[in-house]
Amino acid sequence: MRFRVDPLPLPGTYRGTAIVVDVIRATTTAGLYLRAGAKALILAPGVEVARALRQEGEILAGEVGGLPPEGFDLGNSPREVERVVGKAVVMATTNGTRAAHAALGARHILLGSLQNARTVAEKARETGEEVHLVCAGKEGQMALDDLYTAGVIGKRLKGLGFSPEGEMAHLALFLAENPAFPVLSSSEAAKALVGVGLGEDVAECARVDVHAVVPRFLGMRGEGMVFGG
Amino acid sequence: MRFRVDPLPLPGTYRGTAIVVDVIRATTTAGLYLRAGAKALILAPGVEVARALRQEGEILAGEVGGLPPEGFDLGNSPREVERVVGKAVVMATTNGTRAAHAALGARHILLGSLQNARTVAEKARETGEEVHLVCAGKEGQMALDDLYTAGVIGKRLKGLGFSPEGEMAHLALFLAENPAFPVLSSSEAAKALVGVGLGEDVAECARVDVHAVVPRFLGMRGEGMVFGG
Ligand SMILES: [Ca+2]
Ligand SMILES: [Ca+2]
Ligand SMILES: [Ca+2]
Repeated sequence: MRFRVDPLPLPGTYRGTAIVVDVIRATTTAGLYLRAGAKALILAPGVEVARALRQEGEILAGEVGGLPPEGFDLGNSPREVERVVGKAVVMATTNGTRAAHAALGARHILLGSLQNARTVAEKARETGEEVHLVCAGKEGQMALDDLYTAGVIGKRLKGLGFSPEGEMAHLALFLAENPAFPVLSSSEAAKALVGVGLGEDVAECARVDVHAVVPRFLGMRGEGMVFGG
Repeated sequence: MRFRVDPLPLPGTYRGTAIVVDVIRATTTAGLYLRAGAKALILAPGVEVARALRQEGEILAGEVGGLPPEGFDLGNSPREVERVVGKAVVMATTNGTRAAHAALGARHILLGSLQNARTVAEKARETGEEVHLVCAGKEGQMALDDLYTAGVIGKRLKGLGFSPEGEMAHLALFLAENPAFPVLSSSEAAKALVGVGLGEDVAECARVDVHAVVPRFLGMRGEGMVFGG
């Protein structure tokens, strides 16, 4: 079985199993919401759509410049997940949601991060399909942090018998030979968080193989994509 | 002073010093022609232009599918450079020449490879300008071998006091923490050479810091770009 790495999403090209990676911070925080006990997660492509999708009793999470917009309960920080217990979370993210949308033709869509790297690889293997690691990138530019994370998940896939297919899979694997924190810290995404006083989020996103919760796509709610653990 | 890495050439955007990298094989072989005693090197964007540019007594080098086209003296292999002593070489290369053309606005244009990594970094520093590492890539796709080489040259620049600017410079530096041969061997360019029986060229291109010859842009001859050592 093979795995590929796409530095940027290629909408409509996915068939087997897609692992969407937006490690700083959407897919890291998404996993932590479900691990903390959220009932479900609805990925929304922006702040206004998230407001419209939220139903009574649900949590609104999102960010503009790293911070929660007006009326939002949470700011997408992986260090602020306790309030979601037993509730659905509507989460506004730009690049992560765009990547998840691009994967909609795939048979299975999983959200991957460094924190669930080993488990997301195992869940992908269980599907019995070819795996596409879909890096979110940022505004159409590829992102070092996402490519690195794809490499770490790729290493786990290799350990499970998958072969890298294509040059970008090899590039990601070679990147993954470096330790997580220095690589993530060099990314523009990390520097932006540090700039708004959220540098500790980078350290949280850089923790590798620390839990076993993998958000899995269940279906649509309007423009929102619903994930469960 | 700073250095940037462009995974693909951005025509017309270069001002200071550009180091063009097409490690498999154009910029590796170009350095070796000059080191072997070629009088000059003329980079041509294709086989027909190279034929038209060649003057009496000059050597024609180029490749189609890795091998010399009809009427060509040499096939761009870094292991076949002896015949060039005392002669100018007109060298047809697609991606390497395209990248060199993209750099035409820069004040200095140098050709970089793993073989001259340390020296090309030193020559770039001597210019006193910001450095742009311009990866040739392949047919508009970025290439693992060129990004890796940019990282190795970037490491040398860092050692000379330059700072990496932008995420791709960091990506290249992290790639460069791996040994050269396995990375180059994973590239599509290497696999194509192995496929036509030229695998030993990959090993030659993967040799790091083995000589001190840096091709430097001198001026145009028609569509050809003339380089000297
Ligand atoms: Ca991101
Ligand atoms: Ca090449
Ligand atoms: Ca070439």
